[in-house]
Parts: sequence; structure tokens; C-alpha cells
Amino acid sequence: MDKIFADRINDVPRSFIREILKVAQDPTVISFAGGLPNKDLFPVDALKTATAKVFDREGKDVLQYSQSEGYLPLRKLIAQRYKDLQGLDINAEDILITSGSQQGLDLLGKIYINNDDGLIIESPGYLGAIQAFSIYQPNFLPVSVSEEGMDTAQLKSTVKNNDPKLLYTVPNFQNPSGISYPNANREKVAKIIADSRAIIIEDNPYGDLRFSGEHQKSFRHYLPDQTILLGSFSKSVVPGFRLGWVVAPRVVMEKLITAKQATDLHTTYFTQTIMHQYLVDNDINEHVKLICDVYGKQCQAMFDAVKKYFPKEVKVVQPEGGMFLWVSLPEGVCSSELCKEAIKEKVLFVPGDPFYINTTTSHTMRLSFSCVNETVINDGMKRLGKVIKQHLAQHV
Amino acid sequence: MDKIFADRINDVPRSFIREILKVAQDPTVISFAGGLPNKDLFPVDALKTATAKVFDREGKDVLQYSQSEGYLPLRKLIAQRYKDLQGLDINAEDILITSGSQQGLDLLGKIYINNDDGLIIESPGYLGAIQAFSIYQPNFLPVSVSEEGMDTAQLKSTVKNNDPKLLYTVPNFQNPSGISYPNANREKVAKIIADSRAIIIEDNPYGDLRFSGEHQKSFRHYLPDQTILLGSFSKSVVPGFRLGWVVAPRVVMEKLITAKQATDLHTTYFTQTIMHQYLVDNDINEHVKLICDVYGKQCQAMFDAVKKYFPKEVKVVQPEGGMFLWVSLPEGVCSSELCKEAIKEKVLFVPGDPFYINTTTSHTMRLSFSCVNETVINDGMKRLGKVIKQHLAQHV
Repeated sequence: MDKIFADRINDVPRSFIREILKVAQDPTVISFAGGLPNKDLFPVDALKTATAKVFDREGKDVLQYSQSEGYLPLRKLIAQRYKDLQGLDINAEDILITSGSQQGLDLLGKIYINNDDGLIIESPGYLGAIQAFSIYQPNFLPVSVSEEGMDTAQLKSTVKNNDPKLLYTVPNFQNPSGISYPNANREKVAKIIADSRAIIIEDNPYGDLRFSGEHQKSFRHYLPDQTILLGSFSKSVVPGFRLGWVVAPRVVMEKLITAKQATDLHTTYFTQTIMHQYLVDNDINEHVKLICDVYGKQCQAMFDAVKKYFPKEVKVVQPEGGMFLWVSLPEGVCSSELCKEAIKEKVLFVPGDPFYINTTTSHTMRLSFSCVNETVINDGMKRLGKVIKQHLAQHV
Repeated sequence: MDKIFADRINDVPRSFIREILKVAQDPTVISFAGGLPNKDLFPVDALKTATAKVFDREGKDVLQYSQSEGYLPLRKLIAQRYKDLQGLDINAEDILITSGSQQGLDLLGKIYINNDDGLIIESPGYLGAIQAFSIYQPNFLPVSVSEEGMDTAQLKSTVKNNDPKLLYTVPNFQNPSGISYPNANREKVAKIIADSRAIIIEDNPYGDLRFSGEHQKSFRHYLPDQTILLGSFSKSVVPGFRLGWVVAPRVVMEKLITAKQATDLHTTYFTQTIMHQYLVDNDINEHVKLICDVYGKQCQAMFDAVKKYFPKEVKVVQPEGGMFLWVSLPEGVCSSELCKEAIKEKVLFVPGDPFYINTTTSHTMRLSFSCVNETVINDGMKRLGKVIKQHLAQHV
């Protein structure tokens, strides 16, 4: 049974993060490694109330097979939110509900990627996207990102030399780096892509979680005919319902629906209908504000702790939202090695290398501040600072 | 955006059934076309009670991200049911929870099928499987099935000439034909496959729904090392939770988990935990018996109506379970043409051709009895008998 696997499955990188998270189950370990939202902020009671309403009103129907496109009233609410928050003109018909935005990546891979098709990926980039697209065996074309956004000189030559089909980007509070593209950079990126056949896949799981700075525009503003949007309720409400969506024009939507049908028929209407009821009965913006307050304070505490406990050679960018802080150690330090030493001191982070294509060593590290309070952050960062200083003293 | 689609997505057949079901929304139309379980039998109150318990006991946790494998207590219950009902020795660790068994097909396609790999499919066969596997561009190898099971002479030469990787089968109350393989045929099929590298994918959505005759053995009895099982709660409890599973040995499971992670991270634990609570608090076998009673009576009514209203030239096999009756009209009759005439008389069925590979015409028809009571069945079959008789008079 094991000798006849398809080639594609051997191309998918294993998630190193899964392995690290096993260590995190020890309660004496302080973990900055996870990528989870803070479950203490989940609106459990409001969802319970919404669920009871749904059972009473349409029990039988939400438990039956349904349409692949998703629950129309929920798609209408999502479209309205794009209008209200970003001034984007999107119809409910342009929205497909998916089982988390991870499934949006799988479906887009299915409908777009032939073997060796060029796909621009941020470097560093989101590991879940690398995994999802790997299944369809694209030619990954990494382009560097920094606090200034995407490296446009590199992008230009990559587009010119490879005629890529897709550009995948998380332009707001990126996972893993926490950085956001400034509007000026977005405009330049859009101009380069406009002259090509490529489509921008803008993944925006953290977009709602801005705790400082100004909203930056979606690529859809700059390049409406070449942008596909991915969204999710995982960070703003709950991840456990597995509800995300894809926004794409009609001609793409038809292919996406065919792929969705073939993949799992449809996403459960039970959770879709509950989410819709929750959004009707509650002020999601108020709830998001609460999350931003908590995450903002924790982010500041972690940033301050870097300054206080880490050696002065490290570099760190202060994010304006999201869940992650990205730290660069001096060149030559291997953060996977450092990770092993940190585990001994009972503090965890994710080393940067799995976020790069074809890289097995990196001097970067991802720290998550979403699930740890300010006291825990202070304690953990103190431990981690000690580990880094010892490591530098021995290795550099 | 529409000029750069992947080749694979053009290979997926559209579901003709989707188009027919649009007509079914007219309340004066009698539809035997759907493939839905009867929603009047859904245990809505019991699921509501189970949901409230889950919220109270572990609200936060079931709403968080979780493991790709699925909720362990649910996997244990499924393993126990295999032991109790079929005497099969299966561990919870060998079970992956999927978003309906349709997703099991997608994941198996992902991990096994390279372009043009041989895949044996029943003829006629399940349309959803043809769609799911089409994405991975196999070489479909149709082998005929009848009330005697799979045509073993055809199977033998197909295996010999094509060295297929996979054999996909629904051996119990198949969709669309309603037929089941007798044990003796299963044994012969297993012997032929044992001499090859092929794996049997045994899909069993209707297995619980036996209303007459004797239980027949799983291929796992005959060929434990070359059989993967697919299961589902869609027909025995509710389809709307989108809960199915794959049973596979450890070495395959590892690849499946990698594929599951890349595809949608995990299936929602919210519905998994509710399903588990429902199964703990209620007697699923009693519930299944209720469904079998209703479907059994409706099946008998439809079978009797064929004898009463259809011309004597038609052939029909009486199913021992499931949701479908398969009718063969005289050779030369095109059931798609007949379908158009039936729509005018406000009665619907699904013509047989989409269930065959590379076939655009067929003299067969699928009739579903799950959602129509005996009075409606009598009225609808009377209309349909009239349409068939008129058609035969004009065309044959």
C-alpha cells in the first residue's frame, strides 16, 4: 500500500510546528510557538444562544445536504462588511464559503496550478499556503518581504523571467513576520502584476486585528480584475467552526464550485447558519475591538521585553496588528539550534526556516503573543533572552 | 483570469443532477431524482440536547483549532461499531475523520493518483467519486456490475492489461444501481486483486440501511492489507454535519494526515463532539432501524409500482437496502430524452448516463424512494409509467 503513493504527496513539507507544539503540552513550558487565537476571548455564550435559535427555527433544514456555494444570508453579510469596512463593491454571488481559508488555498491550487506553473510566494511566507500549494507541484518563486513590503525590484525580474500564474500574499500583519505592506508598495506591486497574466491571491486572516496605525488598501482597489480575496472567521470569532471564504469573479467562481463539489460537496450549513445568527444578534466590530485591545497590549509587552532582555544585536519590527512578532538574530546564528536550547529552558518559539522555500537554516524566529498574558510574556522572554545571550557567547 | 486554469479542472464532469434538482423546487413536481436522506427522520431534538451539553462542558475547546486526525472519542466509537457490527478489528488510530466521505475520496486521490494511473470504477458507478477522482486525472477503467456483483472476467482482464492502482467500489446498495455484491463474488474479486498491487477503496455510505436479506462481508475480511474503508454519518444520522471517515493502515494514515492538513487543517470539532455526545446518549441502532422501516416500505411501494404501472419490458432489481431503485428500459431507449418528457408531466428521475464513463446515452434510470411517502410514490410512478409507455409507442 505504501509503494504506490502519488508523487505530489512527497512534495508536501511536514509541519515542524506540529512537532514543537507537542512539547508545549508540558504546563511548565512557556510557549510563544503556537499560532492560535486566544480561546478566552471566544464568544461562547453568544454562540450557544445563536445555536439554540437555529435549532428551533430550522433544525431539519440546516442538517440536510445543501448548496456548494454556501449559506446565502452569510455571504450577503460578508459582502456588506467588505463595503462597510473597506469600500469594496462585492456581491454575495462572488463569495464561496470554504472550510476555513486553508481550503480556499486548496481549491485555488486545484483550479489554477499545472505542474511547474510559476507561483510567487513571500519570503518568508505562510507555511500553510506552502503546504496547500505543494500538492499541485508549482514552481515556487520566493520574493523577499520586509517592513517596506514586497521587494519590487526582485518581483519585477521574477515576473519577467518566469511569467508566473499566481502571486500569494498576506499583506496585513503577515504570518510569520507580522509585517504589513504600505499602500505605496501595494500600488507598485499592483503595477508590476498588471502587465502580466498573474493573479494576486490576497489572504487576509488578520486584517481585522489592527491595534495601531492606519488601514491599508486591498489589492482589489488597485487591481480589481486580477485579485482574488481569501477571508476567515477564525481570528475574529472562532477557528473551530472552520469557516472561511473566497471572493472571485463569476468565471472563476464556476470552476471553484466544481472543485468544491468534487472536494467535499459543501461546508456544513449548521455552523454557517449559527455564524450568521451570531453576526445578526451581536456587534462583531465591538468584539474585534476587544480582541485588538488584548492583543495590542500583549504585543507591546513582548516588544518591550525584546528591548529589555534580548541582546542589542537582534532586530525586531513592531507590528501594527495580528498575532506575531518576528525577530532576526545576527547572521550565522541557526535558530533551529537555538530552539533546542530554548526547549531545555522551557520556553518555545518557531524557528524561521520552515517559512522559506528551499532553506534549512535561518537566523529568524517567530514569536506569538496572542495566547500569553503580560506576566507570562515577561517571564518567557526573560528565559529566552538568557538562552540567546548564552548561544551568542558560545557560537558567534 | 479565465485563460490560465489548470488542465485538471476541465476534466471534471458537471453534475447533471444539480440541474435536474432545480426543476424539483416546483411543489407540483414529484421528484424521484434527489439522493437525499429523509429529513423528517433526522434526530433534531436529540442533537439539540447533545449540542447544549457540549457547549456547557467544553465550549471554548471545541471552538479552537484542533488535531487533523479528528476527535479521538468519536474515532473510538467508530472503531467499536466496526467490531460490534462487522467483527472487524480496527483501531481508533487507523481512523481519520473527514468532511463527509466525499472528502475521503479527494484525500485518497491526492495521495495515490498520478496522471493516467489506472483506477477501476464500477459501471455504473457513483458520480461523486468520478468527480472527486477526475481532479487527479486517472485512467478510469470501468468494470460492469450487476445483481451478481462485479463482472470478474472483465475485472481479471482489466487488472492484467492495466496494472491499476485503485479499485473503487460501493458493494452495499450501490448508488446508482441499488445492487449489492454477494459474498461469493466479493471473494472472487478479492482473489483477483490479491495478485496485483491494487488497493480496494470500499465506500459504504448505505451499509447500515439494510431492510432485508443478510449482511455481506467487507472486502477487509478477504483482503485486510489491500482494503481502505470509507464511512459516513450522512445516511444514518445527518448529512449536514459533514462527518465521514477513512480507515487505513498506519503507513497510509501518515500520508492522509499530511494531505488533510494541506487541504483544510481539520474537520470541525464542534460537530464531531456533538455527534459523539449524540452516540453516547442515544441508541444509534434503534434509530437506524427506524430509518430502515420507513425506507423498506417505500422501496417496496416503488418496486410494486414498477410492476403495476411500467411496461412489462422494463427490468428492475429489488434492492435489499439503501435509497435507490435502478430501472432498465429496452435497449435503444434514451433515458435523457425520456427525462425531458417526464419533466413535462411533472415527475423527475435521474437518467443513467452520468454514472457511466465516456457514455452520453443510456437506457437506465435511477429512482430514489427515500424522501417520498407511499401515496406520492404511487402517484409519481403512475405518471412515469404513462410517460414511458408513450415514449416506447413513439420511439421503439
